[in-house]
Amino acid sequence: GEPSGPVVRTKVPGPQSIAMQKELSQLQNSKAVQFFADYEKSVGNYIADVDGNVMLDTYMQISSIPLGYNHPDLMKVTQGREYQALSINRPALGNMPPRDFVERLHNALSVVAPKGLKHVQTMACGSCSNENAYKVIFIWYNSKIRKGKAFTEEELQQCLVNKGPACPDLSMMSFKGGFHGRTFGCLATTHTKAVHKRDVPSMDWPVASFPQYKYPLEQNVDHNAKEDVRCLQEVQSLFDAYQKKGRPVAGVVVEPIQAEGGDNHGSPRFFQELQRIVKKNGAALLIDEVQTGMGATGTIWAHEQLGLDSPPDIVTFSKKMMTGGYFYTDEMHLDEPYRIFNTWLGDPTKIMLLEETVKVIKRDNLLEVVKDSADALEEGLLDIQNSFPKLISNSRGRGTFRAFDLPTTESRDKFINEIRNAGVQMGGSGTHSVRLRPALIFQRHHAEQFLDIATSVLKKF
Amino acid sequence: GEPSGPVVRTKVPGPQSIAMQKELSQLQNSKAVQFFADYEKSVGNYIADVDGNVMLDTYMQISSIPLGYNHPDLMKVTQGREYQALSINRPALGNMPPRDFVERLHNALSVVAPKGLKHVQTMACGSCSNENAYKVIFIWYNSKIRKGKAFTEEELQQCLVNKGPACPDLSMMSFKGGFHGRTFGCLATTHTKAVHKRDVPSMDWPVASFPQYKYPLEQNVDHNAKEDVRCLQEVQSLFDAYQKKGRPVAGVVVEPIQAEGGDNHGSPRFFQELQRIVKKNGAALLIDEVQTGMGATGTIWAHEQLGLDSPPDIVTFSKKMMTGGYFYTDEMHLDEPYRIFNTWLGDPTKIMLLEETVKVIKRDNLLEVVKDSADALEEGLLDIQNSFPKLISNSRGRGTFRAFDLPTTESRDKFINEIRNAGVQMGGSGTHSVRLRPALIFQRHHAEQFLDIATSVLKKF
Ligand code: FES
Repeated sequence: GEPSGPVVRTKVPGPQSIAMQKELSQLQNSKAVQFFADYEKSVGNYIADVDGNVMLDTYMQISSIPLGYNHPDLMKVTQGREYQALSINRPALGNMPPRDFVERLHNALSVVAPKGLKHVQTMACGSCSNENAYKVIFIWYNSKIRKGKAFTEEELQQCLVNKGPACPDLSMMSFKGGFHGRTFGCLATTHTKAVHKRDVPSMDWPVASFPQYKYPLEQNVDHNAKEDVRCLQEVQSLFDAYQKKGRPVAGVVVEPIQAEGGDNHGSPRFFQELQRIVKKNGAALLIDEVQTGMGATGTIWAHEQLGLDSPPDIVTFSKKMMTGGYFYTDEMHLDEPYRIFNTWLGDPTKIMLLEETVKVIKRDNLLEVVKDSADALEEGLLDIQNSFPKLISNSRGRGTFRAFDLPTTESRDKFINEIRNAGVQMGGSGTHSVRLRPALIFQRHHAEQFLDIATSVLKKF
Repeated sequence: GEPSGPVVRTKVPGPQSIAMQKELSQLQNSKAVQFFADYEKSVGNYIADVDGNVMLDTYMQISSIPLGYNHPDLMKVTQGREYQALSINRPALGNMPPRDFVERLHNALSVVAPKGLKHVQTMACGSCSNENAYKVIFIWYNSKIRKGKAFTEEELQQCLVNKGPACPDLSMMSFKGGFHGRTFGCLATTHTKAVHKRDVPSMDWPVASFPQYKYPLEQNVDHNAKEDVRCLQEVQSLFDAYQKKGRPVAGVVVEPIQAEGGDNHGSPRFFQELQRIVKKNGAALLIDEVQTGMGATGTIWAHEQLGLDSPPDIVTFSKKMMTGGYFYTDEMHLDEPYRIFNTWLGDPTKIMLLEETVKVIKRDNLLEVVKDSADALEEGLLDIQNSFPKLISNSRGRGTFRAFDLPTTESRDKFINEIRNAGVQMGGSGTHSVRLRPALIFQRHHAEQFLDIATSVLKKF
């Protein structure tokens, strides 16, 4: 069973972790290592490290573990012959899918498909999900432009060397503070930290401002509404400017909550208007739910809470879904084979784990658990904010997908470090925010444990 | 145990596969599906489909299965508690690696590291391996250019929106017929088929010619030597031209055998001179061994056979290695954290499978098995070529990594289709080649079985 609370044996990283990190640094850059974990000993919401420490984990492998550590139902899946066969005989899913592939896609993915997006393509991670979703959008957009007119043989030869009208100057619009991955297409739409981007060539794609709200929302209605208008006007201006410079915008990619760039939220109204502008300009709207998807916001998909007029065109996922991929509408369906393809197209063992996860979420009413813990977190963090007004501000979030700010990067980093040494694993977001990304089994009493420890850390801060 | 030969029950795809494909087409584009496989029933070199057919598999999931289907030693790995824990608690390897991570990197990866490349970074697939290797090269190159001079705060802000000197105009050179993946960075260096590229924007990066040899090599020494010279001159001209147009070439990416674009080989001399030219121009040489790596060419790495003056700067891998990633030299080491990073950075269960695979290759002398089967294939395919001179030509390859040509795309596709219906699974390469990509357990008697069936198919062609 789960431990009743953290066990603090050493500072983190402890001596074992430090020794291992030193060894690892002989093989690769190991400077981002926080500690070495013992995944066999970790249970539920608690992660064990190699120095005997046990931490309440509110970060869960960068938001990617849906049911906590060593969930017994998932463990059982790995003990079945089929899981084991698919582990060692990894199929090329596009060419030779396994016999129950369709059934598993239904049970794991169709059952959680966002409304209106009945098609699904699996991928292996968030980056290839976004990269391929961008390609779908470009192909769809350019096919519309040429109205089905085929390319000449010469044009096809040119596109093989990145040239000519078959290799069009199109662009994907994204937002300041957005994060969509670190491969070249994704990176051109990622704008969170210079360390991700400097020294790496990129593409001339438009980048719009994302609303920067003041909190609490109720007291800043005017300012925040103006922010929406300012950003939406910028979106339209960029559509115009890039049309004019011959790099039309084929699609707009946006997170429902900017989940790396500081947990920045947009209002439902912002997203509704954004979708209208995108439609008006003949482009596609891609909602990147790689981090927000799979329940932590209180609904399976965060964008369900945005009140959009109609479904977005594509929704990408990964992390807590364990398999990457994207859902898409009829209109985004590409008819030719091999437009979207790679060797593995994901991993059927991850689809099997997702299938079981979806069952557990339903059986154990985990969305209700999320809502209950979210209430405790929201209330408790407001209390903390009131108790430590110079240290903690801007508590915000949907479900347990929450964040709050410290005054500076330094104080934020110090807080994460001190609370880790007090037995709670957390993550940073943007320049000076702390994010909570607990598993869906994070309950009210875990929330209370976190709040208690946070309070005692802040008292000594 | 392994069956003694193929079992042909129906044409492939059979009625069950066709019905499943139709169902799948409700969810996604399923036109690239060849058949639905039964991975629990597949054994060794033989793949079973859902219609009761059993095929000798010389293609092995697009060259990605090292030890054949359901290898007992790999099966045992999946039955261990640690494998199962790492399956369901997938770590963020850059932040919280598992306790035995360093040891496993040693046992799985360092033991097969190409000479001179002692560093290794894991990734999840061939595409993210190449995307990140390109980033390493760009960062390394640009850091050299600015001689460690830091960017100003303003320049860093600009690069966040893809602009300014911190987001430099650099390029990666690649070759016509090269394939390095389908994400945006990879795709800009992929030049095999228009279906991969058309309607998708790309980057202005230089593309050089790759030698097009005539076979048999012994009878075409002059022509082939001229091909080398022509292509190498083009490489140098492109260095000059892109320097001049302000997009200097930071690196050159090349496959030791163009493994999707038609199984095109370059001579050792071509690669040796290429490396000298790359060095002379201050750029880095990336050898993409995603498809050629892990033994099928007769050595663990194909580039071992090229007699290079010194190690290449980076070698990428995936497929038969099961984990993606890249090996790199001291010089390519980046000192800052988070330059190369993503949530998962691969998957430790794949590293565990690779660790066992490496042991089995050694224990069972599989490189010797490859050499023996390769002799049988080479000899047998020359015989076939002599018996069917109008149909089969240009037999070529290293180890069991082999190909031959048919006169046209149509006849090639027809051959693959007919030999599949006769019980042998094969793959196409380029416009009119057939490729063999068997597992490392493909023995002489499998080669003979394939040759017999190929002969009977060609007799009726
Ligand atoms: S890019 Fe997604 S797994 Fe490699």
